[in-house]
Amino acid sequence: MSGNTEWRLRARPRGEVTRADFEVLSAARPVPGAGEALVRNIYLFVPPSMRLWMDEKESYLPPQPLGEVMAGITLGVVEASNHPSLPVGTYVNCMGGCQQWHVAPAERLQPVTPHAGVPLAAYRTVLDVQGLTAYCGLTEICQPRAGETLVVTAAAGSVGSLVCQIGKKLGLRVVGVAGGREKCDWLLEACGVDAVIDYKAGGVGERLDQACPDGIDMLFENVGGPVMDLVLDRVNRRARIALCGLVSSYNGGGTQRTSALMQLVNKSARMEGFLLTDHYGRYAEVTRKLEEWILDGGIRYQIDILDGLDQLPEAMGRVFHGRNRGAQLLRLSQEERT
Amino acid sequence: MSGNTEWRLRARPRGEVTRADFEVLSAARPVPGAGEALVRNIYLFVPPSMRLWMDEKESYLPPQPLGEVMAGITLGVVEASNHPSLPVGTYVNCMGGCQQWHVAPAERLQPVTPHAGVPLAAYRTVLDVQGLTAYCGLTEICQPRAGETLVVTAAAGSVGSLVCQIGKKLGLRVVGVAGGREKCDWLLEACGVDAVIDYKAGGVGERLDQACPDGIDMLFENVGGPVMDLVLDRVNRRARIALCGLVSSYNGGGTQRTSALMQLVNKSARMEGFLLTDHYGRYAEVTRKLEEWILDGGIRYQIDILDGLDQLPEAMGRVFHGRNRGAQLLRLSQEERT
Repeated sequence: MSGNTEWRLRARPRGEVTRADFEVLSAARPVPGAGEALVRNIYLFVPPSMRLWMDEKESYLPPQPLGEVMAGITLGVVEASNHPSLPVGTYVNCMGGCQQWHVAPAERLQPVTPHAGVPLAAYRTVLDVQGLTAYCGLTEICQPRAGETLVVTAAAGSVGSLVCQIGKKLGLRVVGVAGGREKCDWLLEACGVDAVIDYKAGGVGERLDQACPDGIDMLFENVGGPVMDLVLDRVNRRARIALCGLVSSYNGGGTQRTSALMQLVNKSARMEGFLLTDHYGRYAEVTRKLEEWILDGGIRYQIDILDGLDQLPEAMGRVFHGRNRGAQLLRLSQEERT
Repeated sequence: MSGNTEWRLRARPRGEVTRADFEVLSAARPVPGAGEALVRNIYLFVPPSMRLWMDEKESYLPPQPLGEVMAGITLGVVEASNHPSLPVGTYVNCMGGCQQWHVAPAERLQPVTPHAGVPLAAYRTVLDVQGLTAYCGLTEICQPRAGETLVVTAAAGSVGSLVCQIGKKLGLRVVGVAGGREKCDWLLEACGVDAVIDYKAGGVGERLDQACPDGIDMLFENVGGPVMDLVLDRVNRRARIALCGLVSSYNGGGTQRTSALMQLVNKSARMEGFLLTDHYGRYAEVTRKLEEWILDGGIRYQIDILDGLDQLPEAMGRVFHGRNRGAQLLRLSQEERT
């Protein structure tokens, strides 16, 4: 690992991401300048939205420039430092890219202080991106009141499963939609949801009617497409729909029924999108609370780790086809100090 | 007019409404009971959403029962009264149905006091349904700030044209989308919008780019379909989309691109539906303000009147195909006292 393996985006993917969309280069390990630190990337988080960044059209980030190192959400460790606040050995969250080494000014590196009882990888997933997304999306966009009914799509996913569990802590009736028996069982048994709907088993409309006898007050939506339409068909007056993502559209395509959106009018309902970055002000408060819940066993989560940057296309394929179990990470180097 | 001609819904329309969907009966003129009044219907308002009430599925009203008089938003005059608050000759707004005579308890009849300088028909349209919808939808859902850009679809329609003019009074850049040169010219010349887009002329995306150089902060949406998608593609951060209606879906069908909805996530934007009934608390305040604007010439509007209940299918066809000019009314009897 003396050099730096860099994955650069060569072409804008058409549909699913493949190895051919990247150029893999062996570059020199970068050297930190004044006020900068050298970070060894340990974990690269591979969310579905990474696919959006690759498109020509702006998403919530500017389009990834072609020919440059692919952007990536990482956790690493400082290996050399020109800034007093970041001693060597400090773990940091940052946008470290799809590469092994990263140099950045101190203000772009967010120190992380892992607790001995919590895996380091959790600080790049459940105790950061997913936790903050789930907690703030549910509490601030959905505005839940105890006793109301919440439907969560991609409920066994890394964000969805946290939303389900936080929803239960807030006294909600929680109905999770997921693909396949194994995920549904995990939601019932580990996450404690009130009901599950296996969308792959069909009959989603009837199952929603059964699982939500009092209608649907809130939807935490990760997927979009026909299941979302069926949920919208059943919302109650003044329903709140938190749009966290619409993964079904990221590889291109996907439609919604206009008549399903009309339910927003019929029921004076609200659909609102949000980004993690909208909620960074609550970072310390929320992650402290989630860390307590993890330590006392009140929150369950899964992290799915593959080894090596070479697994990037595989990791994205897993995420889009629901083959991952929990947050999808790539391990780029070992946790231990070198 | 001694008897009562009633239009009863015989069958749920498939697609567009036709005469064959109704049974037209000649019934006895109803007799008011204790606390009730007999109203002679003068104007029947024919909004696109009337089509929704005919479907089996609940909209914002319960489904119209088959075999009963079709629901209808009316303005009439009290011809016989068993309630002291409603002397004979009082003009009233009510849900008087698709018929000539209507009996209702006093609490379901809303007295109207027309100003000599304003047409009576305005009190069932711009000074009630459309005015309250336009004003409250724009101010409460869109939360406009002076200098922001507002796009209005069906901008030459009875609600849209009011939204455009109220938007100008609030200091917004207003861009109206309408079908055809005549409507676009009226928007520019009478309503004072900053720019118009004739969606029938094509190139809507490019025209939006030209008309909204600073992006789009608010959308007041009446139609849905591909134009809405193109507007969503261009919204700014924290945009607000007021869903007033999605007429393109009312006769069945219609889709939206999932990727357009994804803009709500990318831009942390909000889409919210609303109903007139959400805002009745502001009725007196808003209609007073609108009446002042009408009297001083600051608000322009159009009312399109056809004569006779027999014109009901024609009126609905006009509304759905944009052949009406302003709020579509049917005149069921003369304004003058009998």
